[in-house]
Formats: sequence, structure tokens, C-alpha cells
Amino acid sequence: MKFNEFLNHLSNYEPGKDIELIAKEYGVKEVIKLASNENPFGTPSKAIECLRQNANKAHLYPDDSMVELKSALAQKYKIQNENIIIGAGSDQVIEFAIHSKLNSKNAFLQAGVTFAMYEIYAKQCGAKCYKTQSITHNLDEFKKLYETHKDEIKLIFLCLPNNPLGECLDASEVIEFIKGVHKDCLVVIDAAYNEFASFKDSKKHLEPCELIKEFENVLYLGTFSKLYGLGGLRIGYGIANANIISAFYKLRAPFNVSNLALKAAVVAMDDDEFTKKTLENNFSQMQLYKEFAKKYDIKIIDSYTNFITYFFDEKNSTDLSEKLLKKGIIIRNLKSYGLNAIRITIGTSYENERFFTEFDKILR
Amino acid sequence: MKFNEFLNHLSNYEPGKDIELIAKEYGVKEVIKLASNENPFGTPSKAIECLRQNANKAHLYPDDSMVELKSALAQKYKIQNENIIIGAGSDQVIEFAIHSKLNSKNAFLQAGVTFAMYEIYAKQCGAKCYKTQSITHNLDEFKKLYETHKDEIKLIFLCLPNNPLGECLDASEVIEFIKGVHKDCLVVIDAAYNEFASFKDSKKHLEPCELIKEFENVLYLGTFSKLYGLGGLRIGYGIANANIISAFYKLRAPFNVSNLALKAAVVAMDDDEFTKKTLENNFSQMQLYKEFAKKYDIKIIDSYTNFITYFFDEKNSTDLSEKLLKKGIIIRNLKSYGLNAIRITIGTSYENERFFTEFDKILR
Repeated sequence: MKFNEFLNHLSNYEPGKDIELIAKEYGVKEVIKLASNENPFGTPSKAIECLRQNANKAHLYPDDSMVELKSALAQKYKIQNENIIIGAGSDQVIEFAIHSKLNSKNAFLQAGVTFAMYEIYAKQCGAKCYKTQSITHNLDEFKKLYETHKDEIKLIFLCLPNNPLGECLDASEVIEFIKGVHKDCLVVIDAAYNEFASFKDSKKHLEPCELIKEFENVLYLGTFSKLYGLGGLRIGYGIANANIISAFYKLRAPFNVSNLALKAAVVAMDDDEFTKKTLENNFSQMQLYKEFAKKYDIKIIDSYTNFITYFFDEKNSTDLSEKLLKKGIIIRNLKSYGLNAIRITIGTSYENERFFTEFDKILR
Repeated sequence: MKFNEFLNHLSNYEPGKDIELIAKEYGVKEVIKLASNENPFGTPSKAIECLRQNANKAHLYPDDSMVELKSALAQKYKIQNENIIIGAGSDQVIEFAIHSKLNSKNAFLQAGVTFAMYEIYAKQCGAKCYKTQSITHNLDEFKKLYETHKDEIKLIFLCLPNNPLGECLDASEVIEFIKGVHKDCLVVIDAAYNEFASFKDSKKHLEPCELIKEFENVLYLGTFSKLYGLGGLRIGYGIANANIISAFYKLRAPFNVSNLALKAAVVAMDDDEFTKKTLENNFSQMQLYKEFAKKYDIKIIDSYTNFITYFFDEKNSTDLSEKLLKKGIIIRNLKSYGLNAIRITIGTSYENERFFTEFDKILR
């Protein structure tokens, strides 16, 4: 059977075996997963309670207007419901953005190393990818590339802070940069981890309400997968002016998010105790990862998020990842990003200690 | 901001107000929802238990290999894991099928009145829609249209039984029909409600394993939203030969289904007591809807699924739907399908009695 031509340019799916199952196959007693930037404190207790209470409503289709969650987000961010679209993870909003703006005749711009899905989704549209030479976000390079290919570039991704590297631009420089971008070019601010950056340094804080008031071409992405501990439920959102949201709605399938996710997200947003604990633990534990790196002369980039990336010179990241896996510790090998590096999610103090103990043995 | 040209041909989203909220606004004490073909017995108790037990795992990303659910489906249907793709509802698999086969230069074929999303998703690709003149599935008309536009038609939808009309073709005639379809044309068998039809009449039963063994161009769609009582969790599946599944995987976003949905689906599949009760109730209660129709001289089509459609001559379906809504009874007005008809989900005996009582008053 023949399929649409564009599928020929997409790589074949490799049904990766669940890494947790692999670790178990090694016969380890305990698996510590520091690979997916999940919340180390688990699901917020209020969300657990909500899920348990609503488990008996799993047969009912979601309220497709999503008015309850939209209203809660609108209140939080001082925006209107018409400025919001809910996605199955902020990933799905990235798909909407790409499918509405990109095609085989135009291009997008991103940092040298950033969230892999931008490029993967964009390939579905056949759009060209411009990347900065720097692996981290360097706005001078962004500007140069943008100016050179202005007519072609219709979408720019800024990942703030950047996954999988952890660096974060200041809000003020982001705003200055956007001023130089043509109104027909959509600037996507992927703020999946921005709460972490804002907590560490208020200069990194991005306020969607101000962004969309000033710029008609900005899309702000948020998620419940990281700070709010709901990664398994697949729920995130996009905030932009109503024209953009309305275009995205044309691409959205009805009932794109489960009813339990909608309900849990509303209560997770309110669990200040949980988010405070998460943020405080994250940066106090981050300090230990920095000290560990220093001790072993491992290169790092100062991280503004809930993971840290260790860069290696001589040692091989694949080899190190394998060795950790055999000890039941799962981290993310960044070889597929072209880096000899590993990304480690900051866990609980117990999980981090286990990592330090095992990694110490491996590095010696 | 300009968006991709194809978006101009898509209609604007109308953020429909939740109908349940409207009913509540009418000040009714009790809302009876017979509009979305949800399971009247709610969520299966085994699934509720599973959701409650796993609520504290909502922070963990789903196992993206979905091996547990795939293996359970593979065992049930005597197929291989490589023949299966899981979607956020079978709707999402319909999207994969359309996006992989259709484009602005080809066409698809469907019954005169059938599941609205086929046409809506296909519009995103700019494909032409051929419909039979008959509103129900008439294979002679399908054949004629197919033969006339053979070079153009690359996808055929058969909804068995048909939503929103309820009729169902025999498996043997479906198989004969597919034999006449070119191997490059994908035949999508939407079996979202097929368990109901099979229960009523074994001649309607479609066996995916046999279909995909005989035909390399058949996609069988199943869902957990109807018989299995998990509509709110958004989970369904497609079964086809491995080449088709592999093409669809290129279009699938990672983590397209929530971890709780994956877990609940596995246990819901096993809840034979629940499905038996659902099926028995459905057809015994269906009898009452037939008798009611006869009493009021309302036209019906014999229904093989969990809803029944009432057709009106003089009375207006919109007016009737409004009147029922004011009494707290929500059914589906089929005006948007161009029919002066309403679709009523078969509920519990209590719910159905409430419908009969109120509808009786309205019709008098």
C-alpha cells in the first residue's frame, strides 16, 4: 500500500522497550528513574484524591468546552478563556503550532540542541530547520539566522529553560528579541519548565498575559507534566491571542484530553504546598549534583530546571548509562542529541544519594 | 497572522457550551444523559478499582511501547503486537488513516449519513468526499461509486454498525465487498459498536484476525469508550497489517494515551460480567424503545447498537430536543446530519422510563 509522499521522509518507528522493564530484567531490586523529569514527589495528594473520587466517571466523555480548567488558567494568568487551548501534553499544542504554520516551502528556527520533538513534528510538514551553531540559546545567533532567512522562517522555538540542557534566557532579552521578529512569524515560548527557572531567578519569569498583550505572534506553552506531577495524564496548554487559538482549534480533535486529566489539573494547580516542596527540594538537591560534578571534574551548564546535564570528555555517555542501568538507575543518555552527555532528573534526596553512590563507583 | 492555506477551508471552532450545564441551568433536579452512547452502567468496577490503585502514579509518563495493553489485545484477537496501534480514542486512529492516505488530489467514500468525524478530519487534507445517496450503508451504491471513481478513491469508511443510524451490514457481504477493492485503497472498518451488533446477531461479527489475514488493505477500529465504559479516558485501537501500523506510527506523537487509560483498558477487557450485563440490558431495553416508537408511529431503523434513532415527519427534532432538555433529558438531535431525527442512547431501565414518561407528555 502506498501512503502520502511526506511519510517517506519520516523515520520508521522503533518500538523502544520500556527502560524500566529492562532494568528489572537486570534483576535489580529497586529501580530509580531519573530519566523523564517527572516530579520526584509523585502525584500531588490533592490530585490523587480527585482521581480516586472521579474514577467512577471514567465512562463519561470529557466536557469538550473544558470550561473549568480554562477558567482556572484564565484566572491564574489574568487572561481570557479564548486565549487558551488545552492539549494532550503541551506537545500537542506544539503539533498544532507546527501544522498551522509550517509547510514544505518555509522554515523554522531553534537552538542547536533543544527539545527533539520540534524537529520531529516539523518533518511531518516538510519544513526546513535552521539551528544555531551554539547548542544553548544564543540570541545573537538567532537574530543573525532570522535576518538572513526572514522570508522563509515562519516559526521560532525558544525553550525556556532549555530541555535537555537546562540554560535559560532572561525574560527581558526574550522580549527584546521578539520585538525584532515579523508579526507573521510565530514565536513559540516553550515554558514547560519555566516555574523552576522563575523560582531560582525571577529574571527568568515569563508572564503569558504580558507577552500576548504586547505580541500578537507569541505562543506560550505550559504543562502539568513537570512541576504539577501529572505527566502520565497528558495535559498541557497553549496561551496566545484569540486568532492563533482559533486557528489551532481547527486542528484539534474533539475530546483530545481525558476527563480525569481535566479534573486533576484543576486541583493540582491549587496545591501550593506540593509545588513549593518540589521547587525547594529541586534546587537544594541540585547543589549536590553541582558538587558531585566538581569533584569528578564533570562539565555542567548552570541548570534552571529540574534536571542537570553532565558532559564527558573521555568517558562515554552510552557506556555510563548502561552501567547505571545495570544498577537500576535510569538516566537519559543524550547521545541521540549528538552529545556525549547524560541528563539526570533531580530526584528526592534518597534517589539522588543512590545515584551518587552508584555513579561514584562507576567513575572511580 | 497567516496560517497554512488548508486552514482557510476548515470551519471555525464553535466552543459549544456543555449540554449538561445547560440542562442544569433549566433548574432541573436530575439530568439524564442519553446523548453520547456512554455505558449506562458507568465505569466497570474493576476499572474503577484499577484507577484508584494507580491514581498515585499519575506523575509517571506512560510506557510508550504500550506493551501490556497491546499484548492483551493481541491475545484476545489472536494477532501480533505489530498489528496494533493504540489511539486517544479510535478517533485518533481515524486521523492517522486519513493523514496517511488522503490528500487534496484524492478522495474517500462513505455512507450518506455516518460518523461525522470522517468528513471533518478528511477536510484537513483537502480530500474529496463521495457519499452514497442512501443514508444507510448500501453496498451496491458503494460499489457503483467506487467503480466510477476508482482511481481517485483511496479510502473507504464502513461503520459497522453505523453511528448515528444503527444499521449494520453482514460480515459476509463486507468481505465480498472488500474483495472488489484495489489493494491500494484502505478499507476502514469502524467497529466501535461491533460488540453490540455481534451480540444481537452473530452474522454481524467481524473478526479482525481473519480480516487482516485475508486483506492487506483493511483497518479494523475498536474502542474502550462504549461497551467497556471508558469514554472519558480516550482510548481505542486500530488493527491492520504491520505495514499500515508502521506508517501510522510515523504520525503518532509519543505518549498519545494516558498511563491510567492504558492500565484501566487492560482490566476493563477482562470484566466479562460487566460487558454481559451491558449487552443484555441494551437489547431488552431496546425492545421498549421499539414499542414506544410503534405506539407513536415514529419511524425507526432496526438498531444493532447501543442507541436508537427516531425519525419524525411533522414534529421537529430541534423542538423536541429542546423540550426534553428542559425536562433534564439530553438526547442527540440529528439536525446537523441533515435529518429530522433524534438519537437516543439506550440507558438503564430507570433512565429509559424517565425518557418514555417525559417524551410521552411532549408528544401528546
